[in-house]
Amino acid sequence: MKPFRSLISLEKALEIVRSAVKPIERTELIPIKEALGRVLSEDTMAKMDVPPFDRAAMDGYAVRAEDTYDAKDFDPKILREIDVIHAGEISDKIVHKGECIQVSTGCKMPSGSDAVVMVESTEQVGAEVKIFKPVHPKESVSSMGEDIAAGSIILKEGDVLNPSKIGALAALGIQKIRVYEKPRVAIIPTGEEIAELGCKLREGQVYDVNSYTLSSIVEENGGIPVNFEIIPDTYEDLGSVIKDALKYDLVAFSGGSSVGERDVLRDVIQDLGDVLFHGVQIKPGKPTLCGIVGDKIIFGIPGYPTSCLSNAYRFLLPAVRRLARLPPRIEVIVKAKISRRIVSALGRSQFLTVKLEGDVAHPVFKESGAITSMADADGYVDIPANVDLIEAGDEVDVILLR
Amino acid sequence: MKPFRSLISLEKALEIVRSAVKPIERTELIPIKEALGRVLSEDTMAKMDVPPFDRAAMDGYAVRAEDTYDAKDFDPKILREIDVIHAGEISDKIVHKGECIQVSTGCKMPSGSDAVVMVESTEQVGAEVKIFKPVHPKESVSSMGEDIAAGSIILKEGDVLNPSKIGALAALGIQKIRVYEKPRVAIIPTGEEIAELGCKLREGQVYDVNSYTLSSIVEENGGIPVNFEIIPDTYEDLGSVIKDALKYDLVAFSGGSSVGERDVLRDVIQDLGDVLFHGVQIKPGKPTLCGIVGDKIIFGIPGYPTSCLSNAYRFLLPAVRRLARLPPRIEVIVKAKISRRIVSALGRSQFLTVKLEGDVAHPVFKESGAITSMADADGYVDIPANVDLIEAGDEVDVILLR
Repeated sequence: MKPFRSLISLEKALEIVRSAVKPIERTELIPIKEALGRVLSEDTMAKMDVPPFDRAAMDGYAVRAEDTYDAKDFDPKILREIDVIHAGEISDKIVHKGECIQVSTGCKMPSGSDAVVMVESTEQVGAEVKIFKPVHPKESVSSMGEDIAAGSIILKEGDVLNPSKIGALAALGIQKIRVYEKPRVAIIPTGEEIAELGCKLREGQVYDVNSYTLSSIVEENGGIPVNFEIIPDTYEDLGSVIKDALKYDLVAFSGGSSVGERDVLRDVIQDLGDVLFHGVQIKPGKPTLCGIVGDKIIFGIPGYPTSCLSNAYRFLLPAVRRLARLPPRIEVIVKAKISRRIVSALGRSQFLTVKLEGDVAHPVFKESGAITSMADADGYVDIPANVDLIEAGDEVDVILLR
Repeated sequence: MKPFRSLISLEKALEIVRSAVKPIERTELIPIKEALGRVLSEDTMAKMDVPPFDRAAMDGYAVRAEDTYDAKDFDPKILREIDVIHAGEISDKIVHKGECIQVSTGCKMPSGSDAVVMVESTEQVGAEVKIFKPVHPKESVSSMGEDIAAGSIILKEGDVLNPSKIGALAALGIQKIRVYEKPRVAIIPTGEEIAELGCKLREGQVYDVNSYTLSSIVEENGGIPVNFEIIPDTYEDLGSVIKDALKYDLVAFSGGSSVGERDVLRDVIQDLGDVLFHGVQIKPGKPTLCGIVGDKIIFGIPGYPTSCLSNAYRFLLPAVRRLARLPPRIEVIVKAKISRRIVSALGRSQFLTVKLEGDVAHPVFKESGAITSMADADGYVDIPANVDLIEAGDEVDVILLR
């Protein structure tokens, strides 16, 4: 058996991962309907003006502004209505001095008119319209191209498409856009003790948990999980599957990176590429392995479910987001008082799962094999390596697991 | 034309929506692989123990604890290794006094043994194993059922499935679970001035933006958008489409709820059911309509893209989440200094979109028809109805648009 030689700090490990991951270059053309959360791979230029014509910004009357300058609340100007148009309709009449056309919001401005008097400032009796407030030219009018001029860049390479950006694309008549592909992440569970869901457990076996948690985290963070079958923890099996897995953008093994004599993933990676680190000053999840083969990052994540999941949050999540060109995840943090004294291992950053009850955080971490350590958790407290004690009642930052 | 009679406050409007929306009752059985973000519709009971057997929690040696009580760093106890097992393997040997079996993390504990000495506290020479540290009974052993006992409730009705909860289901061998269905939301664009993407614009027309923004918001918040074709803003067309739309869980019209004479949605709803409110003290988006027909909520959202989108965030988003039984969205808020003086309409809550540059928030709101008011926005400042002025340099809370 080979104990760890030296551990590196969490910060150093994260920096290594950050600089080793190369953001994805492949792109694809997709309909804007399917583009929520995707990352634009090129600047998008407006090929048309928005609005595409001068239009009424209010329901009311299209007028020649100068006809209204003398209008007063107690002494309205009277104009003659020569037409009525609704949104989408066009008037073939021309507004001359003393005339107006009733318009709805969004109507193309009739010829001759240069402003809109909003309906609230008017009163209509038959064809006569009383105007109680003066308007200046262009008042309540959106000019052609004033929002977006044809030829301007409306969205930039790297923009993440949210509802409003997708709306902007629609306004420009754009149906398809080019985005970066979602990175595909090979997820490979290892170990004879692991059984697939649906199989009957043999004596000494447990169900595969990590394929499900890792897939969920990949999916939530802009990647596509590709689930492999469970393989034994042998040099031959690992070596053979890794060749297949390298066609994906990132490879995550769960299990097989501890110090047991059968933990041979390190050797496999060493022989095919480089081990970037093996062993991190964190709890749980110390035996985490990160390597590179060709230009592909390979993680060896400890097999115990809680270690696996906390390390997936710590390492896999930022790696997948960087691959996908998504910005770092925005953590939602709430303040809470810890319900009991926590003694943390000095020199190891601890991922302490907690359950929230009002403003009290109850630690639920039992041990790294425990499912309930994660399932019962609302969030976790990230205890830095240089802190070894938190007293009951101390305020802590709880990072929500969502 | 019918101007608004009286507006209600944003808070009142939200309260009306909240109490009118009935959370969905329909459920469906789905594979846990597809369950991320879904809401459990029943308590989930463990049908097996986790772990399903006593197991080693460390790589090391399974021993009888009492054999190690005298072990010291400088005076190790020596035990005889009688077998070696790896995770997933079973030993048919029994550990007697003075004996040990090498085990990997996760191994079923061999008969006779009651504790594990971790490998770091040992040294093996041939079949002799030096034990440098005493262990107590159960040390580094996870007992059968200690994490989850068969028969206990592991997840509750209403739990939202995140990666760790999905992992817990896998650990229990559960492949399918019953969740609430996602609510289906009918999205109906109205108005002759609106054209479908892909069509050539007739004079006076603009492209349909709102179907895209509303769909994205529904999708992001646990609903399934059902997109209808664009229909004219007439009593007949609205009345006929509404009958079809009522088979969905919620109906959102965009356009057709302003004060123009053709804004007939109010009349249609009045004739079929009840108008809950029409006109809210907000900017933009004042002419928002909310009604109920049977037990279905119907929104009439102003057609101008910025009004539509801000109102979708204000009203549609919480309504969809409540329907879907998701908790209220957790807003991500950053502090920033506003770059210029903002004069806000007293008596109206303003949704002021801003672009962030470092810790400075630049207002990008132009007018409610402007696409760039939303597309350029990183977030918005929610200016309460009783605030009419923010000075340049004042600190504001910016709610991020994600």
